[in-house]
Amino acid sequence: MKIRDVKEQGLLARLQRFCPPEIVGDDGAVLTTTPGHELVVTTDLLVEGVHFSSSTTSPEDVGWRATAANLSDLAAMGASPLGITVGLALNGDLTLNWVESLYQGITACLQQYHTDIVGGDVCRSQTITIAITAFGQVSPNRIIRRKAALVGDAIVVTGFHGASRAGLELLLDQNSGQYLTDASRKTLIQAHQRPNPRLDVLPILWEILPPHSQIQVAGMDSSDGLADAVVQICRLSAKGAQIERNWIPIPPALTQMVPSEQALDWALYGGEDFELVLCLPAEKAQPLVERLGKGAAIIGTITTDAEVFLVDSTGVYPSQSLTQSQGFQHF
Amino acid sequence: MKIRDVKEQGLLARLQRFCPPEIVGDDGAVLTTTPGHELVVTTDLLVEGVHFSSSTTSPEDVGWRATAANLSDLAAMGASPLGITVGLALNGDLTLNWVESLYQGITACLQQYHTDIVGGDVCRSQTITIAITAFGQVSPNRIIRRKAALVGDAIVVTGFHGASRAGLELLLDQNSGQYLTDASRKTLIQAHQRPNPRLDVLPILWEILPPHSQIQVAGMDSSDGLADAVVQICRLSAKGAQIERNWIPIPPALTQMVPSEQALDWALYGGEDFELVLCLPAEKAQPLVERLGKGAAIIGTITTDAEVFLVDSTGVYPSQSLTQSQGFQHF
Repeated sequence: MKIRDVKEQGLLARLQRFCPPEIVGDDGAVLTTTPGHELVVTTDLLVEGVHFSSSTTSPEDVGWRATAANLSDLAAMGASPLGITVGLALNGDLTLNWVESLYQGITACLQQYHTDIVGGDVCRSQTITIAITAFGQVSPNRIIRRKAALVGDAIVVTGFHGASRAGLELLLDQNSGQYLTDASRKTLIQAHQRPNPRLDVLPILWEILPPHSQIQVAGMDSSDGLADAVVQICRLSAKGAQIERNWIPIPPALTQMVPSEQALDWALYGGEDFELVLCLPAEKAQPLVERLGKGAAIIGTITTDAEVFLVDSTGVYPSQSLTQSQGFQHF
Repeated sequence: MKIRDVKEQGLLARLQRFCPPEIVGDDGAVLTTTPGHELVVTTDLLVEGVHFSSSTTSPEDVGWRATAANLSDLAAMGASPLGITVGLALNGDLTLNWVESLYQGITACLQQYHTDIVGGDVCRSQTITIAITAFGQVSPNRIIRRKAALVGDAIVVTGFHGASRAGLELLLDQNSGQYLTDASRKTLIQAHQRPNPRLDVLPILWEILPPHSQIQVAGMDSSDGLADAVVQICRLSAKGAQIERNWIPIPPALTQMVPSEQALDWALYGGEDFELVLCLPAEKAQPLVERLGKGAAIIGTITTDAEVFLVDSTGVYPSQSLTQSQGFQHF
């Protein structure tokens, strides 16, 4: 059945089943915030043919990834999610099944974090477009900002990097990864299709940094690449950094798949790993990394330099200056 | 100069000039809410070729109208604006001037209500798409809901209806409105191109209904037509209504332009007047209408009927049942 068969009212009625009943019916949704908290807002637009292809990406994965990207932005600010709105521009020829699967992917990701779709809009368009806005809340002294890194801070990554890029390669090129086990292959593809926003890091972080600690954490997520995150934090904090190339956590499956230089390149510039890159004093970074486990690591230090250097303490590779990835260029 | 000439970074740098500097740079924007208030969220998607044409609508007007529609949804909930996010999907061939003018229209509308753009996203698309999400706040006992109308409530409209539809007609058909003065023509076109969300109604309403009054106002905005608003309020409140046809405020310029039956039809079904339709006890409705002045009126009463009737107390026209406008059907 196609969207044009059920018309706008029929589509809305089906999509409302994915939302809590109390939000349906008014001009806007009402959300309760916790007293003393600040509101955090972030928004993303996904366009078919640019961010995804409806022929090669399942609608569940499109929905999951779009949601994960927005929740990751909340996590990067230190905020817990309150809800998201979903705006959909759809072609009338699209099947109802496609749209319902998209919503299933969105709500599957949200449910992990006990969050709901709290509002939305649907309209017609030649180009499938998904607009998600996410709302969260954070105690004012726990806001994580890019500009707050201090000289001497340890730079923590909350997990492996490069897995998402490797998963994309496996999906794009049938001949890639031929020496991988099925389990490794699955892990990498999963990292690309179903990334997990690291909202789980926040309660651990606040346990290690109780309110009276007065320590300001700086950071952002690594959605546009690990190199991009470190360079942006340093630029906004007017600092530099030394990153130890052997400390960057690269998933074992990735080193089985491609040569080590390629793996490092994907870890630094691949993007979409949706981990957090956090800067905080070394004595707090160490217990954080231990608590996070698998993949979490201290990868370097904030310095007074004007640049971000990738260094090799084993002396095999010369130091090199890391630049912000050009990443994906729109326009 | 086109968007593809300045690339994503160049475009972002220009658009950030329209935002308060403190919101630029992080993964999300931080907003402070007033303690004890609830958060209200509403979202809209505008698609070129569906909601506007970039060849016949100026980008300033597109931006203004999109913003006004979202702020009107906040007003309809009783909420004061905290900010909006703007997601833009744009074709690289579009001129920078078009996009900056769009932002000028958005900020011109926002400035009237001391509100800012607090976040956004830009990306490439074949189809120009604008996604706006607006945030507001409201004291819990002042939330205006559609479902709260009570039998005996007076139905108030905050201003004239039909002007937006008349303005559209003047823009579409060169031969229409030939008996209008230039001033009347301008007023009607202005109503269509630059509608004002009725956030100004709220402080007046709360002055007439102090917190201890315990009166719950029901209502919504008339963006989809006056008839649609009354029918929706009645449906969600499980009530009926009698609307007195001679009490519906029709702008003088509209009665000069078309026969009275046509004017009434546009007032009821034209839509996009962005007034509020409010239900409250008659002894409070009367002072509200007096304070609002120009165009504001009591148009009828909430009843125990199962339907919404349009009645004529002068006996010229028989009663008729009002149905929800089919309005604009997507898909």
